[in-house]
Amino acid sequence: MELLKEKISNEGKVLSDMVLKVDSFLNHQIDPLLMKEIGDEFANRYADEVITKVLTIESSGIAPATFLGLTIGAPVVFARKRKSLTLSDNLYTSKVFSFTKNESNDISVSKDFIKAEDNVLIIDDFLANGEAVKGLLDIANQAGANVIGVGIVIEKGFQMGGKQLREQGVRIESLARIKSLQNGKVEFFAEGEY
Amino acid sequence: MELLKEKISNEGKVLSDMVLKVDSFLNHQIDPLLMKEIGDEFANRYADEVITKVLTIESSGIAPATFLGLTIGAPVVFARKRKSLTLSDNLYTSKVFSFTKNESNDISVSKDFIKAEDNVLIIDDFLANGEAVKGLLDIANQAGANVIGVGIVIEKGFQMGGKQLREQGVRIESLARIKSLQNGKVEFFAEGEY
Repeated sequence: MELLKEKISNEGKVLSDMVLKVDSFLNHQIDPLLMKEIGDEFANRYADEVITKVLTIESSGIAPATFLGLTIGAPVVFARKRKSLTLSDNLYTSKVFSFTKNESNDISVSKDFIKAEDNVLIIDDFLANGEAVKGLLDIANQAGANVIGVGIVIEKGFQMGGKQLREQGVRIESLARIKSLQNGKVEFFAEGEY
Repeated sequence: MELLKEKISNEGKVLSDMVLKVDSFLNHQIDPLLMKEIGDEFANRYADEVITKVLTIESSGIAPATFLGLTIGAPVVFARKRKSLTLSDNLYTSKVFSFTKNESNDISVSKDFIKAEDNVLIIDDFLANGEAVKGLLDIANQAGANVIGVGIVIEKGFQMGGKQLREQGVRIESLARIKSLQNGKVEFFAEGEY
């Protein structure tokens, strides 16, 4: 997605060979128009599928997932990273390790909102080691739902998550796939290059 | 906002005289079309003002704030509840006590994204004791920004936050104002009733 790649090139900050910061439009400040374009692009990529539920995780997945949900007419569920007192015990949970934050979180989704008859599309902002996506897949599987695939805004293609998940047969559509962050520069994979 | 009140009446769960659960369309599962209508209604209510920045807090404020941002052409910034390793020390912070979760959180916003020249509209899902809104006001004040007002999806009008903030001269637009949750029933204030 060219618009997204331009935004990453212009505004992304390469903090190390591993870390890209996109706080100006995705992870802290949000560019609403870009989020709408991203939601529409996910809808395009999965136009051949019937999706009944969009599943994401708080917080940065919510904006693109909600625009996708509006476009395809499906509700969005966001997994929570901590239990709240107003969430009951009626939960699917999975453990997710965040390398960025260096901690494990239980993520949880109410059993009321993912059902065995659902066709689920999983959305997240970043794919690196794939921990969050694996947790969301685990939750969808616990519910007995059918997972259509995964939509990722930015894939760090030099990390192993995308490769592992594709080898397991999971369909992943990433709108920008980064080949390298070396020497302070963002280099993208070409479309179809792995 | 009638559509919202109907949704609350039909799908909201009154857990006690104090607690309303709206997990089916706002706080866990999200109804994208309703979020768009809410964003548009906030834009309507503040159509007389020039807003340069929408400020909210993760996670449930993000969807309505982002639709508002799209409609008025302003970026959205969401305050974070915990520091992440990819956020620098260049932060405004404020302490917020959550009665729902029974814990205090430092909320933080990067100094890069709220500036003295900004006209800020604060958005949140719920207003009860007003702790989150006070924290966001504090952050906007630290930045020297001009706060236009506050937009709330659901105000629990029987708690003190809204009253206190209005007495301080803060403009608050709440799309549904709840008068009482007694006897398991949601009763709304009429428009203009306080």
